[in-house]
Amino acid sequence: MKSLRDLVDDCNNVPHSLDRWVAELNAARRQGADDDGPHGFAFLTADGVRVGLLSPPVTAALAAESDAITVVSATELEVTRHASDGADAFAARSQRLAAITARWRAASRFPALQGWRDELYTVYGAGGVPAFTVERAASGLLGVRTYGCHLTAYTLPVGAAHPHPDLHLWIARRSLTKPTFPGMLDNTAAGGLPFGQAPFECMVRECAEEASVSEEFARDNVRPAGAVSYYQRQDHLPSLGGVAGPETQFVFDLQVGDDFKPVINDGEVHGFKKVRVDAALELMRQGEFKPNCAVVLIDFLVRHGYITAENEPDYLEIVHGIHRPLEWEFPGPARF
Amino acid sequence: MKSLRDLVDDCNNVPHSLDRWVAELNAARRQGADDDGPHGFAFLTADGVRVGLLSPPVTAALAAESDAITVVSATELEVTRHASDGADAFAARSQRLAAITARWRAASRFPALQGWRDELYTVYGAGGVPAFTVERAASGLLGVRTYGCHLTAYTLPVGAAHPHPDLHLWIARRSLTKPTFPGMLDNTAAGGLPFGQAPFECMVRECAEEASVSEEFARDNVRPAGAVSYYQRQDHLPSLGGVAGPETQFVFDLQVGDDFKPVINDGEVHGFKKVRVDAALELMRQGEFKPNCAVVLIDFLVRHGYITAENEPDYLEIVHGIHRPLEWEFPGPARF
Repeated sequence: MKSLRDLVDDCNNVPHSLDRWVAELNAARRQGADDDGPHGFAFLTADGVRVGLLSPPVTAALAAESDAITVVSATELEVTRHASDGADAFAARSQRLAAITARWRAASRFPALQGWRDELYTVYGAGGVPAFTVERAASGLLGVRTYGCHLTAYTLPVGAAHPHPDLHLWIARRSLTKPTFPGMLDNTAAGGLPFGQAPFECMVRECAEEASVSEEFARDNVRPAGAVSYYQRQDHLPSLGGVAGPETQFVFDLQVGDDFKPVINDGEVHGFKKVRVDAALELMRQGEFKPNCAVVLIDFLVRHGYITAENEPDYLEIVHGIHRPLEWEFPGPARF
Repeated sequence: MKSLRDLVDDCNNVPHSLDRWVAELNAARRQGADDDGPHGFAFLTADGVRVGLLSPPVTAALAAESDAITVVSATELEVTRHASDGADAFAARSQRLAAITARWRAASRFPALQGWRDELYTVYGAGGVPAFTVERAASGLLGVRTYGCHLTAYTLPVGAAHPHPDLHLWIARRSLTKPTFPGMLDNTAAGGLPFGQAPFECMVRECAEEASVSEEFARDNVRPAGAVSYYQRQDHLPSLGGVAGPETQFVFDLQVGDDFKPVINDGEVHGFKKVRVDAALELMRQGEFKPNCAVVLIDFLVRHGYITAENEPDYLEIVHGIHRPLEWEFPGPARF
């Protein structure tokens, strides 16, 4: 049985001294290497600002792309801004990275690209301005910050307020054929935030796509409630040799009545069930949830007074572990 | 007019590279000093674990207390554990620090001690175990983590849910004679967490002491909702030359009806008023609130969907800035 702290630590498991961690990993690698070239972990930069962390195989592959990437040092690669890009370095960088990742996909260079989504993620650079876009399936390769939206739909007895022992949470089981975390438990609806869409619009769309919730109902009742952030080693991508993802999930609550029932729609979800809060906590502790979905539920239960300083010894470590200040490492959006 | 980001940054204004910040401050000081002794900023440790950050005048004063303090280096002082303390180093350390701070108070050594409260704060050491207690008025001198509880009482129109433009917040004006932030706006009730009391009990007590809210009503209706944390230079203690406080405030919500009215009681509060959410935001932006009370309100407004990723460009910086992971610098409680 996992503690709540274990669940948070599973999700937020990159040491907070990122520079030191990377230096140690590279020092260990170099003991067996015969040169000091860009083959270890390296930071990816744009306009001199760090935007991602590359694993050794991706570092080596990107360093060879001399038209798009400048090798600044063994531990820093720069997404090149050519003089000819003029004002639109954003478009030029995005196009070059799109060409590279498409080529890697065609050559089956990285298994992660087999999950190609035809969906763009935005990577923010200096001043929170978009530096480039990248295909969603390739974002993990670049170790860039990514964003998503997660919804928790719940019922309370009529007239009851949080916290109440008869709180019920609608949880999803992921499709058994999903490439990542198949069959694990998930929040009511969730999805990655694509280029050009703001979080609320994304959440409303995902409600319809994943749970058949009408746009009108979602727009009137879905409530923004903050964000969780964590930095997680992507152990489900072992071929990348230790890549890590700094992720932010905008969280939304949706109180519904007993007549509400989410319905599967787009094949991402195997099915839904409504579970009492005590049973949900039990499932979390048994490790049944996709790790970041457990973190979203933990945040919900802290905000609504179910997890408290009195009943949870690791209360502050949990509150802080789910709100990692990722801006300390990489810029985020100045706005959506 | 301040932005919400300004308000958060006012409160969380210690650089996140604490070691580097202290090293830079000390390097600047040493250019004018004629030795390398413990006269700059220094970390305070217990059992070898950092528990606080001492300003230069306090470093010098503590370094002279050779019965209670071991000078480990120019930048580290250790709260001594004598062989004779046996198992009860906690009591022995607490007694020695109590004697020192009482002597300093009698000698008017530090103005901050004129606000003596006869109230003990707990400082946690290795493993989250209490390392010692210290008089509340002296906690700022030692730069240790401190904890408090803040309540936001509010009304919504009958049947309405968050977010609603007619949300009204009960805010307090601090007594004009308080030593810190006199006359500024505050949350409905708030107080420091004393040694031996858990957050919920502390909040219930403060509700009665500061706002005349009955214990029974508070116990039934006050809802824990997380915690905010930040690391703030204590510019209201200029005689300390730059001391900083790593603070955590447990936050609580209290929905009340139109018949609810907080009443002043213990002289800490000048008066209460109920303000609409838009007016409260205006007062915050005008800098009328004590900084950490503005942060508590910002957290409330994020959790309940008033401040969103769409209407606030610095949304993530705000969410992260009010949840600083202070455990990265100093241990917190393993439990209360």
